[in-house]
Amino acid sequence: MSKKMWRTAISTHIGTKALVRGYELEELIGNLTFTEAIYLVLKGELPTEKERKMLDVMFVATIEHSIAPPSIIAARAVISGGNSLNVGVGAGILAFGSAHGGALEDIMKLLQENIDKTADKIVKEYLSQGKRIPGFGHRFFKDFDPRAKKILSFAKELGFYGKYCKLAEDMDRDPLSYNALITRTIAIAYALKGITEEAEHVGVFLPNSTSSVKIDPISYFS
Amino acid sequence: MSKKMWRTAISTHIGTKALVRGYELEELIGNLTFTEAIYLVLKGELPTEKERKMLDVMFVATIEHSIAPPSIIAARAVISGGNSLNVGVGAGILAFGSAHGGALEDIMKLLQENIDKTADKIVKEYLSQGKRIPGFGHRFFKDFDPRAKKILSFAKELGFYGKYCKLAEDMDRDPLSYNALITRTIAIAYALKGITEEAEHVGVFLPNSTSSVKIDPISYFS
Amino acid sequence: MSKKMWRTAISTHIGTKALVRGYELEELIGNLTFTEAIYLVLKGELPTEKERKMLDVMFVATIEHSIAPPSIIAARAVISGGNSLNVGVGAGILAFGSAHGGALEDIMKLLQENIDKTADKIVKEYLSQGKRIPGFGHRFFKDFDPRAKKILSFAKELGFYGKYCKLAEDMDRDPLSYNALITRTIAIAYALKGITEEAEHVGVFLPNSTSSVKIDPISYFS
Amino acid sequence: MSKKMWRTAISTHIGTKALVRGYELEELIGNLTFTEAIYLVLKGELPTEKERKMLDVMFVATIEHSIAPPSIIAARAVISGGNSLNVGVGAGILAFGSAHGGALEDIMKLLQENIDKTADKIVKEYLSQGKRIPGFGHRFFKDFDPRAKKILSFAKELGFYGKYCKLAEDMDRDPLSYNALITRTIAIAYALKGITEEAEHVGVFLPNSTSSVKIDPISYFS
Repeated sequence: MSKKMWRTAISTHIGTKALVRGYELEELIGNLTFTEAIYLVLKGELPTEKERKMLDVMFVATIEHSIAPPSIIAARAVISGGNSLNVGVGAGILAFGSAHGGALEDIMKLLQENIDKTADKIVKEYLSQGKRIPGFGHRFFKDFDPRAKKILSFAKELGFYGKYCKLAEDMDRDPLSYNALITRTIAIAYALKGITEEAEHVGVFLPNSTSSVKIDPISYFS
Repeated sequence: MSKKMWRTAISTHIGTKALVRGYELEELIGNLTFTEAIYLVLKGELPTEKERKMLDVMFVATIEHSIAPPSIIAARAVISGGNSLNVGVGAGILAFGSAHGGALEDIMKLLQENIDKTADKIVKEYLSQGKRIPGFGHRFFKDFDPRAKKILSFAKELGFYGKYCKLAEDMDRDPLSYNALITRTIAIAYALKGITEEAEHVGVFLPNSTSSVKIDPISYFS
Repeated sequence: MSKKMWRTAISTHIGTKALVRGYELEELIGNLTFTEAIYLVLKGELPTEKERKMLDVMFVATIEHSIAPPSIIAARAVISGGNSLNVGVGAGILAFGSAHGGALEDIMKLLQENIDKTADKIVKEYLSQGKRIPGFGHRFFKDFDPRAKKILSFAKELGFYGKYCKLAEDMDRDPLSYNALITRTIAIAYALKGITEEAEHVGVFLPNSTSSVKIDPISYFS
Repeated sequence: MSKKMWRTAISTHIGTKALVRGYELEELIGNLTFTEAIYLVLKGELPTEKERKMLDVMFVATIEHSIAPPSIIAARAVISGGNSLNVGVGAGILAFGSAHGGALEDIMKLLQENIDKTADKIVKEYLSQGKRIPGFGHRFFKDFDPRAKKILSFAKELGFYGKYCKLAEDMDRDPLSYNALITRTIAIAYALKGITEEAEHVGVFLPNSTSSVKIDPISYFS
């Protein structure tokens, strides 16, 4: 039997049966929503009704990016050159990076690595070193981000408001003078973190996540 | 007031309010599933429950592409070079084209342009000219495609089985000898066609649709 | 001996020796200019001194695209999202297409397919059908394109001014009233055509050439 | 006068005259080789004859990558999906990254940051910490890389063999037992370093250079 060079835990074929995370694809059609199927592929198991709802909340919160960000500009420029739809979409996705969407990943790491510190200590550390706190502040939403407010509210209602959400809100509510500058934009990230607290590959969940996601690089040459 | 060079009918901002197809984004969060939001963005209106269900059926049917197709190979090769997740995903999407995913668009056009002919006449025309009928036949599923069977079954149940579905099935059921060669793979396309019968930009719906989609190219230089 | 799924006529390895079009790579280093090496890879043989010079003329004529075209916008947007250099360059190249750079390919086809007609007849045909003649006219250079003038001048001097160049110039010089609208921009393409008159895969030469280049698609699924 | 959002020091237009690094493009056509034009665009000045020759040596050394690396696989997979040439080329370039081509940048940084240490000290430091020395070793060329040998030989002949080249060769020649494992593959990088010793944006020279190249990110949102 030949050794396969590339392997995946996500799906396999047995004869003409396609299996996704152990479930027959045929049985999933008509029984899952798209959101449930995405959860299954990423996490390896079916979501509870609350997890499904929370994921829908987060996905719907991201459907609108207006006309200005790099991803949209790249997509439109490539289409305007006379290329097909898939090439424009591909180029748009290329534009996500550390400066566009990447803040979600950065704040998740910050929260994860500093979970045992107080919000006050973290903020003072960052500000005293002149470092920008990722995920706080938004060029449009100066006071607060309405999407973040909604997401946090659903996180509480559905039971996903955990220690990471709390730390992030504490950092925002802290009595220091920085709170005029920071908003709750990043709730998308930390509410999500609530769901995936134990997950190893948590970054994979983020639609915008990019650099240093802990995805196994394929040892192509070995 | 400055004239905007780029316009979109999909979304706009009024102050800090984001509007998607006329709905406040804030109100959509928690009230729509991801599938409903996709339908809204693409069609400009909310789906009925049956349209939502049919779309979920079609989306879930496409979640598994195994490890062999060009899109997966391109994605993995790019990641193996040491790039971030978004670059791999972008490269995967670039690989969709006339020979990978494009059959969905081709069969939709064929059905649309030949809707007044009989299945028998269409098939004879194609075979006599030695042309391949797009969307029929699959390298794995020699007898029938289980996904297509499911999709067609839901199309009937939910009321989306229209003249295009019928023509496609007639082409498959025709007493000619080609039916050993063709399967119902393309049901994804024609059931979808059932939903969007009157839509002008029907191709936009297809996740894999690529070339010659009737998207307005941006007159960038004019 | 195992059958190779993918094959190339361009290069091979024998032990630790890399062969490019039959030449040892080691021997090429220091003996060829980059332009000569590009010619070798594309055409399979070394250029004459005149062919090398003509190719340098054409390559240098394309080094400047200023800041406005889709390829530059896509590249800058992707870099501004926080991605590495290769991702920006890749995105820029994606933006070339039928509406950006593609005119070079279109005019080459037009000249090739209409070489037995007179310039007068071709122009009348296009204008009477309201079709735009590809490769003539430029948004910046209203009178003539200085790059095209130079390229044509070198094509004459170096002996590459053949029937395609002549037809294109005739179309430009024709006593009809369209000559105010058209320029000699496209000389890049037709001088090049002079070099490659007999070549089958002529499009491959064009840095900007894109759609319908006669490159063998890899029969990946067969 | 309107303030331009995007600026470049590389080129500008004055009326219908295109200027590249201060030179009229029209005058460059026919007077520069492609290699000289690339040098001009990147460095802002014309190369000496020796610099031109050294650059040709390095460019020609990289023209052959055979059929196996990620860049070629990504390009072919994307073309096999039925896309145009530019999309395949773009996808190939996306595949360069820290694990494919990126070693050139890593070894340049290592040499730059450790130029005041001895080869012996650097190698011992890396090996004692179990870190891999970037740019040494190659999966095909176990003894030495013939391209590297050629490049170093030309670097000496043309006067570009400086302190970085020497340090790299010392690391390779060191009496420790690691020299069976390492080769001179990376000469491409350090000979180049010889040319650009004082250059600030040295990485830009490298065709394969990717992450953390010191290119100014466009402050798109400011």
